[in-house]
Amino acid sequence: MNYERILLAHGAGVRETSEILQYVLLSKISDSMKRIEGGYGIDVLDDAATIPLPNGEHMIITVDSYIVNPIFFLGGNIGKLAVCGSINDVLMMGGKPLAILDSIVVEEGFPINDLNEIVDSMINIAREEGVAIIGGDFKVMPQKQLDKIVITTVGIGMSEKPIVDLNIKPGDKIIVTGTIGEHGASILALQHGIEVNSKDLCSDVQPLTRLMIPLLKRYGDYIHAAQDPTRGGLAMALNEWARKSGNIIVLDESKIPIRKTVQAYAEMLGIDPLSLASEGRALLGVSGEVADDILKFIRGLGFKDAEVIGEVHRAERYKGIVLLKTCVGSIRIVEVPSGELVPRIC
Amino acid sequence: MNYERILLAHGAGVRETSEILQYVLLSKISDSMKRIEGGYGIDVLDDAATIPLPNGEHMIITVDSYIVNPIFFLGGNIGKLAVCGSINDVLMMGGKPLAILDSIVVEEGFPINDLNEIVDSMINIAREEGVAIIGGDFKVMPQKQLDKIVITTVGIGMSEKPIVDLNIKPGDKIIVTGTIGEHGASILALQHGIEVNSKDLCSDVQPLTRLMIPLLKRYGDYIHAAQDPTRGGLAMALNEWARKSGNIIVLDESKIPIRKTVQAYAEMLGIDPLSLASEGRALLGVSGEVADDILKFIRGLGFKDAEVIGEVHRAERYKGIVLLKTCVGSIRIVEVPSGELVPRIC
Repeated sequence: MNYERILLAHGAGVRETSEILQYVLLSKISDSMKRIEGGYGIDVLDDAATIPLPNGEHMIITVDSYIVNPIFFLGGNIGKLAVCGSINDVLMMGGKPLAILDSIVVEEGFPINDLNEIVDSMINIAREEGVAIIGGDFKVMPQKQLDKIVITTVGIGMSEKPIVDLNIKPGDKIIVTGTIGEHGASILALQHGIEVNSKDLCSDVQPLTRLMIPLLKRYGDYIHAAQDPTRGGLAMALNEWARKSGNIIVLDESKIPIRKTVQAYAEMLGIDPLSLASEGRALLGVSGEVADDILKFIRGLGFKDAEVIGEVHRAERYKGIVLLKTCVGSIRIVEVPSGELVPRIC
Repeated sequence: MNYERILLAHGAGVRETSEILQYVLLSKISDSMKRIEGGYGIDVLDDAATIPLPNGEHMIITVDSYIVNPIFFLGGNIGKLAVCGSINDVLMMGGKPLAILDSIVVEEGFPINDLNEIVDSMINIAREEGVAIIGGDFKVMPQKQLDKIVITTVGIGMSEKPIVDLNIKPGDKIIVTGTIGEHGASILALQHGIEVNSKDLCSDVQPLTRLMIPLLKRYGDYIHAAQDPTRGGLAMALNEWARKSGNIIVLDESKIPIRKTVQAYAEMLGIDPLSLASEGRALLGVSGEVADDILKFIRGLGFKDAEVIGEVHRAERYKGIVLLKTCVGSIRIVEVPSGELVPRIC
């Protein structure tokens, strides 16, 4: 490690996050301490961990802390973001969400009306998704020791067959289920004091249950990888898939669904839209021979902007990279994002 | 609610914490949304939640956020505290700890050496206790938006028969497995700038696996309640037991093990030692007829300061209260603690 102090980039879900995690934790513990036998653990660095159960099913479990700033934004608030995030992580691991636990840390003096509104959002999402709230914690930090609120949520679900992203194969197609980067762009705009109209730009945060449950039921055997591209966006998620599987992923820029306003804000603020977070989109790696059927099925579920955006190729010389065929016909490498991008994005 | 803003007391694990939890969450959701069917959830407000498994066992799951200040103290640091806390919550629910997940939020500029030392403590405890680290999250907040570090840990375990504290019965004896209030008193002293020598006073933080696993194996059927008396100490834990079961608990002050230094610091700082947090003690409600055998067994495991400190009585007029027979022969009500006590105690 070349750092003496923690940088914002260490928490941005990018290259530096992988480095610090490796340095302070992963390099120090044996593989058997990274998982429960027969399950997937911190060794696979996927959306969630799995615990094998006596009947052959797997319990799925995930934890994430949310520090988004501002805590209220167009399309949601930190509570909705937290519950959707945990539900989506369970879904992306091939699980059916059953329950959440939450731990809330707030600053002394935090308005109780705001807390009420945030918890109401958590309850509403949980209720709509049929997810119980089975436990939690509540702490307060003295004034000026915390800027507003941190919410940590635990998502729990069950899966007959977890989806682990290292299983993508040459010939698989990459599908994204909607326009990308809207959460990232809208938080970024707010942080830069840019006035945004909800018609132009709004966080895409939403639970993906109505997408994933029917999809898993109908096409479960053909889905080899699934992830919600949050911190680091498509660029981070797909580089991880390529690295873990040792393949090359080739994206077609002309197919990637993105709203003009997101493109414009990203250009204005100097950020690659492929690195911008989505909070309500799924990225799927599916068998090539049924990709078009799956795309049609996904659109039929109401996700009209879904597209096949790329393909997985067997790597010859260069393993584990992501390439982009641009709209102007050139090819560029999609780098693993690094640097601080957007602080407190989720 | 008579408050417009969050007070420190709301996070102190005392009366106000119960009030805010009721107000923002529990009053808004149905009982069926507070648990998974056949399990215990946020409705019982116990150490952890349980999820029934197909083979009749229960998965135990708990989440807690740690904000202790200072983050390094005599006897441990925030990392050790977090992992011990989650392990102990699983144990107190009658479970065998199997795995943890952790989510760390740090301030930009936090020294990497300090983070390393904290994570090392987490790893060491997990390794010693045979607990895997199967998942987690890592976030960074910009400078001055967080004072140092918040660690959230999730504890997971398995139990054949969860212990739910509402099951204590008239005739049960109350056992505490060691001297009380040492964690609370030592953090309190540090926060007040009082120089403390580790021989005089040191946090009692420790995992209770070597106590609870043999105890559950030998006397599991006779243990009706178990809790680690952290925030709010004995006073909070026992008032909860009395309230949930509708009984009266009578304590014998002369039997409560407490070190002279803890008593002295508590008096100096004007805090009832019964409200001071312990982080390595178990409070047990056990069948009266085997209480002496259990006490002998616990002492035989190395917990030499363990004592029977009280008894559960059937309530006639006053239900759900805790009484203390003092050393001078009087009787007083042990109130549910309220107010801010010690900020950032755990």
